[in-house]
Amino acid sequence: MKILVANLGSTSFKYRLFDMGDTEATLLAKGGFERVSEYTACIGEMLATLKADGHLASGDDLDAVGFKTVLGKDLSGCVEADDRVLAALDGFKEVAPAHNPAYAEGIRCFKEKLPAVTRVALFETAFFQWVDPAATVYAIPQSWRELGIRRYGFHGASHKFIAERSAELVGNDAVFERARGLYVDGPSDYSGDPLRVISCHLGGSSSVVGIRNGVAIGSSMGFSPQSGLPQNNRVGDLDSMAIPYVNKMLGLSMEEAERQLNKESGLLGLSGVSNDARDVREAAAEGNKDAQLAVDVLIDSIRHWAGSFYFKMGGAEVISFTAGIGENDANLRAKVCAGLEDLGVVIDPAANDATVRGKEGIISAPESKIKVCVIPANEELVIAREVYRFKQSH
Amino acid sequence: MKILVANLGSTSFKYRLFDMGDTEATLLAKGGFERVSEYTACIGEMLATLKADGHLASGDDLDAVGFKTVLGKDLSGCVEADDRVLAALDGFKEVAPAHNPAYAEGIRCFKEKLPAVTRVALFETAFFQWVDPAATVYAIPQSWRELGIRRYGFHGASHKFIAERSAELVGNDAVFERARGLYVDGPSDYSGDPLRVISCHLGGSSSVVGIRNGVAIGSSMGFSPQSGLPQNNRVGDLDSMAIPYVNKMLGLSMEEAERQLNKESGLLGLSGVSNDARDVREAAAEGNKDAQLAVDVLIDSIRHWAGSFYFKMGGAEVISFTAGIGENDANLRAKVCAGLEDLGVVIDPAANDATVRGKEGIISAPESKIKVCVIPANEELVIAREVYRFKQSH
Repeated sequence: MKILVANLGSTSFKYRLFDMGDTEATLLAKGGFERVSEYTACIGEMLATLKADGHLASGDDLDAVGFKTVLGKDLSGCVEADDRVLAALDGFKEVAPAHNPAYAEGIRCFKEKLPAVTRVALFETAFFQWVDPAATVYAIPQSWRELGIRRYGFHGASHKFIAERSAELVGNDAVFERARGLYVDGPSDYSGDPLRVISCHLGGSSSVVGIRNGVAIGSSMGFSPQSGLPQNNRVGDLDSMAIPYVNKMLGLSMEEAERQLNKESGLLGLSGVSNDARDVREAAAEGNKDAQLAVDVLIDSIRHWAGSFYFKMGGAEVISFTAGIGENDANLRAKVCAGLEDLGVVIDPAANDATVRGKEGIISAPESKIKVCVIPANEELVIAREVYRFKQSH
Repeated sequence: MKILVANLGSTSFKYRLFDMGDTEATLLAKGGFERVSEYTACIGEMLATLKADGHLASGDDLDAVGFKTVLGKDLSGCVEADDRVLAALDGFKEVAPAHNPAYAEGIRCFKEKLPAVTRVALFETAFFQWVDPAATVYAIPQSWRELGIRRYGFHGASHKFIAERSAELVGNDAVFERARGLYVDGPSDYSGDPLRVISCHLGGSSSVVGIRNGVAIGSSMGFSPQSGLPQNNRVGDLDSMAIPYVNKMLGLSMEEAERQLNKESGLLGLSGVSNDARDVREAAAEGNKDAQLAVDVLIDSIRHWAGSFYFKMGGAEVISFTAGIGENDANLRAKVCAGLEDLGVVIDPAANDATVRGKEGIISAPESKIKVCVIPANEELVIAREVYRFKQSH
């Protein structure tokens, strides 16, 4: 089954073409365009290339196109990208201005160019559909709640993959099956061995998620992807009263305060060095105190959220790391897991140091009660897999 | 030693007079005034009453007056209420508009009326002076941090008392002594048996604090007392991006959004019933779904913060409950501690149900690895005790 994954930025268009089977997945081609003003021409050019390279006889050879949509108003899941999806993206265009309009436009262009090819939207919020309302509701007035202001959770594709792969790694087949079928079957009844996972997706954008038996119980990211952990240049958790305060004290308008929290905060705002965690880490190693503080605040925030989910799940069997920082920063992983002897966490320093640059593995010692693992993710492949499952079941 | 504790609201003045010794504390008198426009007359009237009742020969019989100040700019601790304190209160009058100007004025009035009597300010932030900067810094631009926007923590008097009393209850004398002397000696070196406490102060205003060997490692309350747990009518934690969003969608000004988050949110905003947890609980018991949601959100938030401190401390020996909700809502305590068998928490339902209305006690079963206790607090007495220690050491 030939599945195209379209990754749409406000001025970019990237794609990967996979040949998917029940157990196999082959990357056939990938490509992209920068400084894009409209997607239709890109789609045409892409199809010409894929045909010339022998991957497709025509556009209709495609079985489906998958879109990693961010969040929709009153809609989530892995669903056909129809008019409901377009309306849901439009309903939250103010919440995700860099993503929603681009995806809505891309879905429209594909519909026009390839009307016979199934379009599938995999919302980044999909993994969090079954979170208990007590963990998604903010204590705000009803008029605010009616706007859709609640905790959503993002990086759903990545965390769901961790739910599946961590179950495989520790040999819990029942949870693996449950997680795999989640978007098709919903959270099926479960009475097997428990598998409670603290999933740390740490990169340019970061979140920590608690996963009980394959299903998320919550995310560090709330209403917007600006909340939770400090991000590359976005603020993370902040007392909301800070905004009226900077308005009073610095005369910042709402728009300017919002801009600074979205562009000049996070690791960049703390370190003054860079929005790239590698640069910040390097500066810290060279003695830059602000950069060291940025690293320390990130670690503290990871532990804060990991602890929340550990307690709410009443324990954990697995702590998992993925994405750029999670896959490569062995020092940070060690610090996140430090001082947890009473919880049964014992890191194997050699395994931890060796598991970098795309390697998968368990970095805890054999006697560690909680398994700590590193699971590199291939986000496009994860999307292709969900789209394949969608097609198989529809 | 005769110590007066002055509790100053913007239109009220309450006081308690204690006779304090090393181990004894006697409440000699208490009283108060409502609809107060200036404090000087109240102080005069109070002194006349205390003299008439034989508690004082003159105002100068007082050894000290204690003030529970909220937060000061660049100043905290249990300190003499001198010009530095007045400047610190003034520097943060925009952060605590209901409290700081009242306390500054009250301190000035006492200085004028009773210049020879020591005035002592016990900041509500004092217990959090030794929190690691990684846990106090928000990932905001430097210009914001320079304004003093960081996590402070409040309810310090109450949580410090829990640090002392919980150590007594479980028989850890070393931690008791360390906590007791904290404001005089600072955090002394410690190598005795560990005592890690999760302290839940749950009332009209609520916070959860982690306490390691008598010293706080962090609080759920951050920059303002509006953050952390949902409060009676204040919002608690909220994605800061919600404010620009309601501005765009509802046209709310910064001031109006701030007002709604401070007056129409929290348990009131969620339940639509009341800002009193007792009313909300009653409505929930009668089947009001919104009230039940408010209760559930509060419990979830307590568990969130408790978990954060549990993990950061690498475990806990004690979970403690205090204040109106914490001392009286046995059902809520049971739910906060539910599902924690793997952490070694076993509640004794009979002890839990019986420990209400001002009773102190351990509500966990004898086999519970983590002791769960209820510790009623007498906030004025707590302040008098710190003022006494201050006087003894100065």
